[in-house]
Amino acid sequence: MATSEITHGDGRETQRLNILSGARSVFARKGWSATMADIAAAANVSQGLAYRYFPSKEAIYAELLTHASRLKAFEQVRTMSGTAMERLRFLIDHLLDLDDTHIEFFRLSVLTLHDDALPSALRAQLEEQTEAFRSLLQSLIAEGQQTGVIVAGDPDQLLMALLAFLDGLCIMGIQGSDKAKQHFPDADIVLRILQPPANP
Amino acid sequence: MATSEITHGDGRETQRLNILSGARSVFARKGWSATMADIAAAANVSQGLAYRYFPSKEAIYAELLTHASRLKAFEQVRTMSGTAMERLRFLIDHLLDLDDTHIEFFRLSVLTLHDDALPSALRAQLEEQTEAFRSLLQSLIAEGQQTGVIVAGDPDQLLMALLAFLDGLCIMGIQGSDKAKQHFPDADIVLRILQPPANP
Repeated sequence: MATSEITHGDGRETQRLNILSGARSVFARKGWSATMADIAAAANVSQGLAYRYFPSKEAIYAELLTHASRLKAFEQVRTMSGTAMERLRFLIDHLLDLDDTHIEFFRLSVLTLHDDALPSALRAQLEEQTEAFRSLLQSLIAEGQQTGVIVAGDPDQLLMALLAFLDGLCIMGIQGSDKAKQHFPDADIVLRILQPPANP
Repeated sequence: MATSEITHGDGRETQRLNILSGARSVFARKGWSATMADIAAAANVSQGLAYRYFPSKEAIYAELLTHASRLKAFEQVRTMSGTAMERLRFLIDHLLDLDDTHIEFFRLSVLTLHDDALPSALRAQLEEQTEAFRSLLQSLIAEGQQTGVIVAGDPDQLLMALLAFLDGLCIMGIQGSDKAKQHFPDADIVLRILQPPANP
């Protein structure tokens, strides 16, 4: 590998982001078993070059978690106004945007969370973020049930249903056929599982 | 391995079913990468014994597909009476029964369908069954939209949503925490995504 492949300044930052983006994509598909070779291939760079930017896949994964903790949609939803249902729609709209990275990050989280091979420091960081996301959904469901915009019933069951539905959709959004992507479900369909009956 | 480990008559059939059951479970978790060693471990038998019943994991997988093609719930739903929504509820109730094998078979199908390593003869058989299942859901959605028991709108989008939701639930049912299993969503929650608004 020629040293000239390493770029400087803005170019260097662009290449870093490119490698991170390739890594997010392969971790979302293969989970923790993704290798530096997979990551380099996804980023369209040589493996040697990838190693000049990051010492290991652990370092890349850690940086992905740090990026995710700053995801704007999650920050915004905590501070925005509107009913619990409106804020859930905002959140899920972002999560299911096929052009965005939220969907890959969500799938990466679900896929790597139960992998025993994930190093414990990374696991702790991921668990913290996963728990923050679940708590956010949980508090929006609780608030929505109190104000009557979300159907009554076991809130844990609603949370499980929402998480399972989102996981299934993220898999389909990432691995599905073109037809699946053309007819990709939107937040409105997902939120029907939380809607109270119009005539109770 | 002692020859006495091979049982005869009814005992032999019980052992065959035990190995098939272990295989269904590991294929549902690991996909096609599951090995004979994984299958033997899940069935609590030695690998040598597993090989005395089945020459290869391909043979086991083929037999699982044959078993699945005779699943009673799928036969019954084709011939039973009731609205499209009632028949979908019947089907999904069976699919989401954590004590049943439908949930493992569904997950096994989704997980292995897109694996390039799956031998082509098995892939053809699986694709045929997957297509039959999708067609069944599709025809029930079409019928339900015609009779007004299912919400209007893009039927392909409803099908994708249903398949994604079921996939996410099957993963949760198989790999989820005890808490997830205690609050496992039921067919009623799933079918809300198809319900027409009470006041159109």
